[in-house]
Amino acid sequence: MNKKGILIVVSGFSGAGKGTLMKELMRKYPENYALSISATTRGPRDGEVDGREYFFLSREKFEKMIANNELIEYAKYVENYYGTPRAYVEKMLDEGKDVILEIEIQGALKVKEKFPDTLLMFVTPPNARELKSRLVGRGTETMEVIESRMNRACEEAEGMSAYDYLVVNDELDDCVEEMHSIIQGEHHRSSRNVNFMNDIKEELEELKGEN
Amino acid sequence: MNKKGILIVVSGFSGAGKGTLMKELMRKYPENYALSISATTRGPRDGEVDGREYFFLSREKFEKMIANNELIEYAKYVENYYGTPRAYVEKMLDEGKDVILEIEIQGALKVKEKFPDTLLMFVTPPNARELKSRLVGRGTETMEVIESRMNRACEEAEGMSAYDYLVVNDELDDCVEEMHSIIQGEHHRSSRNVNFMNDIKEELEELKGEN
Repeated sequence: MNKKGILIVVSGFSGAGKGTLMKELMRKYPENYALSISATTRGPRDGEVDGREYFFLSREKFEKMIANNELIEYAKYVENYYGTPRAYVEKMLDEGKDVILEIEIQGALKVKEKFPDTLLMFVTPPNARELKSRLVGRGTETMEVIESRMNRACEEAEGMSAYDYLVVNDELDDCVEEMHSIIQGEHHRSSRNVNFMNDIKEELEELKGEN
Repeated sequence: MNKKGILIVVSGFSGAGKGTLMKELMRKYPENYALSISATTRGPRDGEVDGREYFFLSREKFEKMIANNELIEYAKYVENYYGTPRAYVEKMLDEGKDVILEIEIQGALKVKEKFPDTLLMFVTPPNARELKSRLVGRGTETMEVIESRMNRACEEAEGMSAYDYLVVNDELDDCVEEMHSIIQGEHHRSSRNVNFMNDIKEELEELKGEN
């Protein structure tokens, strides 16, 4: 069966709990998965560590990476670049790890276009009311903030159907197991096992000759 | 998430152990799966029970079912009809069970054409040499029998890539869990959850209005 890693993009509603989910998946299955770390030109915030949350790069360095095709995808928000360094992803895939990128929908679609075998997963709370209550938070947010979050959620919802799988994050543990099981299942897709099929066909023809 | 059952076709090399696999899957997960029973006009063999191995029908009855569109697919081998009665399959799907048809490739492709959501799984031994040794059996078969089995296996191998998933039957227990996990994962496909996505979108719009 397919031993090469699968490139996986995980997106989801803000507040769907992607971060916690990814951390738990990595903790439970460190042999299976590698989490890609994005590069950015924005400065680190309190508590952020270079090489853990992001690779913090100068604008000059980032633009050089763009020019050298060293990024799988990148985008500019406000004044800052964000992108996925290619080298780490390819190294991990070759080692047989499934590599997870946690990026939003525009980036996800760009990756899928470049690498059609990419697996797109979308994380969602069980229903809209639960999503809203997570977005509203502890009641300390202004009307404006909540409204802008709800608008963003509506936009995110429009993108859902572009993803291959939906994962409902209700109970963290169940959700982690669901994701793991979906990804492991994907390794059995015949389209990911063309070599295996060709080997069987060739060997069968050879063995037929041995009679 | 998708509560309606998935229609699943399981095919595979002769000697790949499909029968045992299906029995074990049904035994371990009786709540999840229903095995479709084919209808045939051939007579029962020793030990075969009507309604267990097959529904044994008269040719007249079978042709009436064809005329009434009561079969999902059917085929004629030598002088006998074989087919899949529609009513049982639809009833089980509506009850939320995943329904498994164990049929060969021509039938599988017909079903997929009629019902594009059908999940096609192909069961294979881990490699060609293992397959051959299963086909050769205990050394009691004639050259001719073995040769004809190998020819058939080569034909079957040509069909593999039309299937969605490959399942390697090396250890029975592992293989059962693999199949179960693939099928459960499929329930999370976004294409199988259009209602869920539409509900979230509509509810979000409504909740936005509530601010």
